[in-house]
Amino acid sequence: MAENLDLKSFIRNVPDFPKPGIMFRDITPLLANAEAFGESIRQFADHFRDEKPTAILAAEARGFIFAAPLALELGASFVPIRKPGKLPFDTHAFHYELEYGSDSLELHTDAVGAGDRVLLVDDLLATGGTMQACAALSKKCGAEIAGFAFLIELDFLNGRENLLPHNVLSLIHYNGED
Amino acid sequence: MAENLDLKSFIRNVPDFPKPGIMFRDITPLLANAEAFGESIRQFADHFRDEKPTAILAAEARGFIFAAPLALELGASFVPIRKPGKLPFDTHAFHYELEYGSDSLELHTDAVGAGDRVLLVDDLLATGGTMQACAALSKKCGAEIAGFAFLIELDFLNGRENLLPHNVLSLIHYNGED
Repeated sequence: MAENLDLKSFIRNVPDFPKPGIMFRDITPLLANAEAFGESIRQFADHFRDEKPTAILAAEARGFIFAAPLALELGASFVPIRKPGKLPFDTHAFHYELEYGSDSLELHTDAVGAGDRVLLVDDLLATGGTMQACAALSKKCGAEIAGFAFLIELDFLNGRENLLPHNVLSLIHYNGED
Repeated sequence: MAENLDLKSFIRNVPDFPKPGIMFRDITPLLANAEAFGESIRQFADHFRDEKPTAILAAEARGFIFAAPLALELGASFVPIRKPGKLPFDTHAFHYELEYGSDSLELHTDAVGAGDRVLLVDDLLATGGTMQACAALSKKCGAEIAGFAFLIELDFLNGRENLLPHNVLSLIHYNGED
């Protein structure tokens, strides 16, 4: 049965959040269903096992939800990427521009290094800006990129183009307001 | 071997973070070791399996790291509790006082309900204020409390007293600057 689970059916569409005109894809019904949530982790693990990732990285907060169980499933490190001032040890920082304003993320300098192959995970691929920042932080530490895993991809924003030629997997796709 | 893992040996002590005089307990070395991280999840699951929790709740962000794999291990719902404005659907809010200022957390109104037994999870038990807020939100939804699980407990802050008589498990204890 798990093979035939329609993961998209567990996503709730919330119109006009966080602002008018935006259709928000609410993942909480999927997280509330252990069968569907577990199936998403199994699909990530099956796809990336042969890439032999040594560390699973995610930016707070929703990325943690998928990266932590995936790290355990693959026997890899779980590594958090956080907003400024949250990680206590020496960090690399990466500043990046958003549609309105800018943001910054940090990674412990000793979290990964040469010889590590990192798999970067998030709930949603939109324009890919956050994941590009996470990849840049990983490379600052000397790690290689093993790939990118997302629960949801908003195909019409073409964020995938910013992550190629790496291995990119998304389990659920939206082409518009469907 | 897993039975004899010293989880405390995977915690890094970072003095004077986030401010002078504070010894920060950095959990990232534990998260980076799949054997130690997995052992912590197994200990949580073994302790609470008989409480038959139906939902594992955690406040962002570090709580997610433990609650998500634990939910999958126990076949229960994973339910995120978030800072204001992050959850897209109808929410209950709870405001609470901190040492300096106040904070607020939100829970989807339909996340749990009557008949649910919730296990509340976080990385650290200090004074217990955040967990009391999470418990209050759970009760607003009509759920029962199955217990509280923490990786680390700062015994000298007596936060446990604020959570009794519920079932409280912490895997690592500190009695001071040890």
